[in-house]
Amino acid sequence: MLSRAATAASHSLIVASSTENLELADIYLAGFLDRRVIWKGDKLIDGVPETLDMLRSKGKRLVFVTNNSTKSRKQYGKKFETLGLNVTEEEIFASSFAAAAYLKSIDFPKEKKVYVIGEDGILKELELAGYRYLGGPDDGGKKIDLKPGFLMEHPFSYPNLTRVGAVVVGFDRYFNYYKVQYGTLCIRENPGCLFIATNRDAVTHLTDAQEWAGGGSMVGALCGSTQREPLVVGKPSTFMMDYLANKFGIEKSQICMVGDRLDTDILFGQNGSCKTLLVLSGVTSLSTLQSPKNSIQTDFYTNKISDFLSLKAATV
Amino acid sequence: MLSRAATAASHSLIVASSTENLELADIYLAGFLDRRVIWKGDKLIDGVPETLDMLRSKGKRLVFVTNNSTKSRKQYGKKFETLGLNVTEEEIFASSFAAAAYLKSIDFPKEKKVYVIGEDGILKELELAGYRYLGGPDDGGKKIDLKPGFLMEHPFSYPNLTRVGAVVVGFDRYFNYYKVQYGTLCIRENPGCLFIATNRDAVTHLTDAQEWAGGGSMVGALCGSTQREPLVVGKPSTFMMDYLANKFGIEKSQICMVGDRLDTDILFGQNGSCKTLLVLSGVTSLSTLQSPKNSIQTDFYTNKISDFLSLKAATV
Repeated sequence: MLSRAATAASHSLIVASSTENLELADIYLAGFLDRRVIWKGDKLIDGVPETLDMLRSKGKRLVFVTNNSTKSRKQYGKKFETLGLNVTEEEIFASSFAAAAYLKSIDFPKEKKVYVIGEDGILKELELAGYRYLGGPDDGGKKIDLKPGFLMEHPFSYPNLTRVGAVVVGFDRYFNYYKVQYGTLCIRENPGCLFIATNRDAVTHLTDAQEWAGGGSMVGALCGSTQREPLVVGKPSTFMMDYLANKFGIEKSQICMVGDRLDTDILFGQNGSCKTLLVLSGVTSLSTLQSPKNSIQTDFYTNKISDFLSLKAATV
Repeated sequence: MLSRAATAASHSLIVASSTENLELADIYLAGFLDRRVIWKGDKLIDGVPETLDMLRSKGKRLVFVTNNSTKSRKQYGKKFETLGLNVTEEEIFASSFAAAAYLKSIDFPKEKKVYVIGEDGILKELELAGYRYLGGPDDGGKKIDLKPGFLMEHPFSYPNLTRVGAVVVGFDRYFNYYKVQYGTLCIRENPGCLFIATNRDAVTHLTDAQEWAGGGSMVGALCGSTQREPLVVGKPSTFMMDYLANKFGIEKSQICMVGDRLDTDILFGQNGSCKTLLVLSGVTSLSTLQSPKNSIQTDFYTNKISDFLSLKAATV
C-alpha cells in the first residue's frame, strides 16, 4: 500500500489514490547500493524487476543514483546484470559520473589535468569524458621522504607541464599523506584550481558488517589543509537533479526521489524540489518517520518498491 | 628596539620604555620550530642564548611552545642541545605533551586506552603520563581487506577488553584509511569516547622547501567521518595558557606570548588574555602588521628577540 505522508505537525496517514501516485513523477530516481531499495546484500528485493518493467511500460524514466564513486556507470551496470536486472548505463547516475558531468557542464578546459583522490570509478568516468588525470590508485603506495630541503614536485613546479585545474575527492580506501599533500598543493598553488567532492557522506557501507568512514573523511582532510570548502556534486547537492531536469527537459517537480533514508535520500529530494517516496525496506522505520523528533518529512511512503505493482490496473 | 604597537585604528607606533617592557610578564612563551623566533633553518638567530640567559637572570620563566606533536619534550630538548641552547624539558611545551597533560587534568581513567593517530611524540608523552595506548606508527602499514562480511575489530567488539576512552589526533605522515576507520569506530561506538586534537594547523613546515599539509588534515578527516568537533589542546586553544598559569600560580595577564605570526602565535596570546610580542624575524613583516587589512594587533613588536639585550642595563 502506497501512502501519502502527512505534514510534520500531525503525523497521521492518508492513503493516496493510485492515480495520484503514479502520475506524481515523470522520472523516478532510486537510491541503490546497500540501501535496501532495490536489493539487500546480494539479493534483489522481491518484485523489483516487475516493478521497474511496469514503470517503464508507463513511459516513466528510471535513474539509479548513488554517492558511491568507487565504480563507474559501466561497472555498476555489471552489478545490476549479475542480479538479473536490465538497467542501462544511462539509467545509472553515480557520483563518479557526476564529477565528470560537472566538469563538462562548466566547459572545464581539456588541456588541464585533474588530480584524483579516489578509486577507479572516477578515473574511468573522467577518461570517458575526455579528461586527463593523475593520482587515484597509482598514488596509493607512495610515501613522503622528508629529508632536509625535500619538496614534493607537482605540475606547478614545472611551468611547461600541464597544470592541474581541478582536484576531485571521493571515497578512497588507499588514502594516504602523499595524496593529501599533492591535492593540497594543487589547490593552494594553482590559481583557480577547483576543489570538487563527489560527496561528504560520514559513513559508507563497504561491507554489511559495520559502518565504514565515508567520503566525508577524505574531503574533510582536504578542507583542513586547504581551508577551502568543496563543490559537492553528489547528494545532497542538487547538481544531479539540475543535470537530469536539464537533460530530459522537465521541471524538477516532475522528478520523484525514492529512497530508504530520510537524512540522505529524502532530504536530497527535498533540496532539489522533487517529490519524495520513502520505502520502509531499509534504514528508516515507520516509527522513526512518525517520531516527533523527526524533522524531515516525505511526500509518500510505502513498505517496499514493489507496492507499485498493486496499482497496475489503475489508469495511469 | 622594542616597540609598543598602537591600536588597530591608528597603526602608529609608540616606543615603550625599558621598564615597561621587561616588567610586562613573568613568563615568556616563545613559539619555536621553523618559526624564526629562536632559529632559522638549523642555525640559532644571533644573540638568542644571551637573551635567554639575561631573561632567566631576571627571574623570568621561559616556556617554548609548539603545535608540532611529532616529538616529545625530551626529543625537542635534544634539538635545543644540538643548537647549543640550554633548555630543560620543563621549559618545552609541545602539543604532544599538551595532549597527555589534558588527559591528566581531567583525571582520564588509567584503565582506559588511548587510540593515537599521530607520530612518536604523542606515544612517548602518553607513556610518561602513565597511559596505555594503541595505534600511532604501528598502524602506518595496515590495510583494509574488504571481503564480504568483513569488519574491523576494535576493543568495542570485545566487551572484556579495555575500551578506548579517547582518540588523540595529531600530524601523521603515515596517515591512512585504517587509522581513519579505527579512530572513527572508537569515537562513534564507545560511549563517551573523547576526540582530542593536538592542533588544527592547515600547514606545517616539515622541510623548509615548501608548506606541507598539517595536522588540520588528519583532524578534518575524523570530523568528516564522525561529525564531531574535537577538543583542541594546542594553539590557538587556551589550554596551554590555563595549564601554565595554574602550574605557576599566576594570572594569564602575567604571561607574554612571543611569536612571529599574527594569525597563530599572537592570536593565541590574545585568546589566552596574555600580553603579546611579535618578532619581525619570521613570517609577519612590519608592513603586514601595519596594513589596514590586518585585524590582529600585538601589544609589542620588535625586530628580533635579542633586542631585549639592549635593555640590559635598565632597572627591571
